[in-house]
Amino acid sequence: MEKRELLYTGKAKSVYATDDADRVVILYRNDTSAFDGKKVEQLDRKGMVNNRFNAFIMDKLAAAGIATHHERLLSPTESLVKRLEMIPVECVVRNYAAGSLVRRIGVEEGIALNPPTFELFLKNDALGDPFINESHAISFGWATGEQLAVMKTLSLKVNEVLSALFLASDMLLVDFKLEFGLFHGEIVLGDEFSPDGCRLWDRETRKKLDKDRFRQGLGGVVEAYEEVAARLGVTLD
Amino acid sequence: MEKRELLYTGKAKSVYATDDADRVVILYRNDTSAFDGKKVEQLDRKGMVNNRFNAFIMDKLAAAGIATHHERLLSPTESLVKRLEMIPVECVVRNYAAGSLVRRIGVEEGIALNPPTFELFLKNDALGDPFINESHAISFGWATGEQLAVMKTLSLKVNEVLSALFLASDMLLVDFKLEFGLFHGEIVLGDEFSPDGCRLWDRETRKKLDKDRFRQGLGGVVEAYEEVAARLGVTLD
Ligand SMILES: Nc1ncnc2c1ncn2[C@@H]1O[C@H](COP(=O)(O)OP(=O)(O)O)[C@@H](O)[C@H]1O
Ligand SMILES: Nc1ncnc2c1ncn2[C@@H]1O[C@H](COP(=O)(O)OP(=O)(O)O)[C@@H](O)[C@H]1O
Ligand SMILES: [Mg+2]
Ligand SMILES: [Mg+2]
Repeated sequence: MEKRELLYTGKAKSVYATDDADRVVILYRNDTSAFDGKKVEQLDRKGMVNNRFNAFIMDKLAAAGIATHHERLLSPTESLVKRLEMIPVECVVRNYAAGSLVRRIGVEEGIALNPPTFELFLKNDALGDPFINESHAISFGWATGEQLAVMKTLSLKVNEVLSALFLASDMLLVDFKLEFGLFHGEIVLGDEFSPDGCRLWDRETRKKLDKDRFRQGLGGVVEAYEEVAARLGVTLD
Repeated sequence: MEKRELLYTGKAKSVYATDDADRVVILYRNDTSAFDGKKVEQLDRKGMVNNRFNAFIMDKLAAAGIATHHERLLSPTESLVKRLEMIPVECVVRNYAAGSLVRRIGVEEGIALNPPTFELFLKNDALGDPFINESHAISFGWATGEQLAVMKTLSLKVNEVLSALFLASDMLLVDFKLEFGLFHGEIVLGDEFSPDGCRLWDRETRKKLDKDRFRQGLGGVVEAYEEVAARLGVTLD
């Protein structure tokens, strides 16, 4: 496998072509952003931590029968993945109220959601990743009803698998965001799963161990990510 | 039937008990509000126009097999209806982009939506009637999944019936808001259908014939409502 030209650069990762039209390399950078790119910083070691963390989680999901794009680690900050035609809709599952849900619905942070909620957001920085619903995705052609149903089922399955995984290490999986894409017509989990795109709290103290430390200027961002990795047994450099 | 004490007063209507525990009187006032009650005015004749307009529409919907709360007109500004246990969720169907959808998704006003979109909003003025989805309604106990499915089916049925009705009088039903409630456990269409809660445009000129005239300070608000009534053949005083 040969790494070729840069295809596109996101806020935290860069995507490179390979000699295989069906594979791309994802490079995890140290760039950390929040508020749709309005707050940006470089956090030492973050690219490596997220790359290794994501590989660990994707392997767990694959073992649970969920089709993911992840193929293998290439370097501390690079992974080889299936090249997906990304669906521009983010899927968010919440087990506890936090973030935009708290602002929108006026509930208290931390209340348990039973059953977990499932939300769609349009992946569009210029519009601030607006909250949408299935009918918008269908009417505007971002995804079909069938694709959305699969994305919802897979998201809730991911939630079951990972809630149990984190709980076993005394962490609450508060919420998380997933991105899916199409690989030869099949819906496959893409992008990344890392503390950049989820909320994780210590089960007892509810200490935040995720990107909210960055958003809220709490400090110790990568240190918290590394603590999560250590608790799960993810090997870091 | 005897009208008894005031039960509650909304932004545009007042609800009175009757000697029948299963029936209430709805009084349509001239109060006109927008922006979650931040803009309020009295518009002469509006209560009468909306009351008679709503009765006409509810009869058409009943004739099409949709269960509604409407029983009969009592006076120019009052109707007798079934007393519902209201579900605090507004159902919005859109055939053309306008209003909050335009602001949220950044599409141009007036583009056709195929298929029509279906949205839920939490009825809560203090929070600005936030956009929600089915999973929020279920997790917070505002409605069950089964109730939401019925509300969606009925809303889309209402859209079919009324889009055809307005089109026959050269008007486009751009979007509308419905409220449902429970009558002895059955989902029934409640509240009102009037130009206060929908968008109607002239088919040719796209002249606005609804509450956007009030929201946008275009003037001729009740005159437009009366034009809509005249086109449909609704008898006014
Ligand atoms: N398997 C994949 N194939 C192609 N593109 C992908 C794949 N996984 C993720 N992507 C895309 O690569 C980009 C990742 O970079 P990121 O920095 O997260 O971007 P963003 O700023 O959009 O969040 C995103 O646009 C994401 O949708
Ligand atoms: N059939 C009904 N039974 C009981 N309450 C009803 C019925 N239809 C409508 N309502 C309620 O009556 C009130 C109508 O008043 P309105 O001025 O529209 O209120 P709002 O300011 O909440 O929009 C609303 O709270 C509405 O939900
Ligand atoms: Mg991203
Ligand atoms: Mg109302």
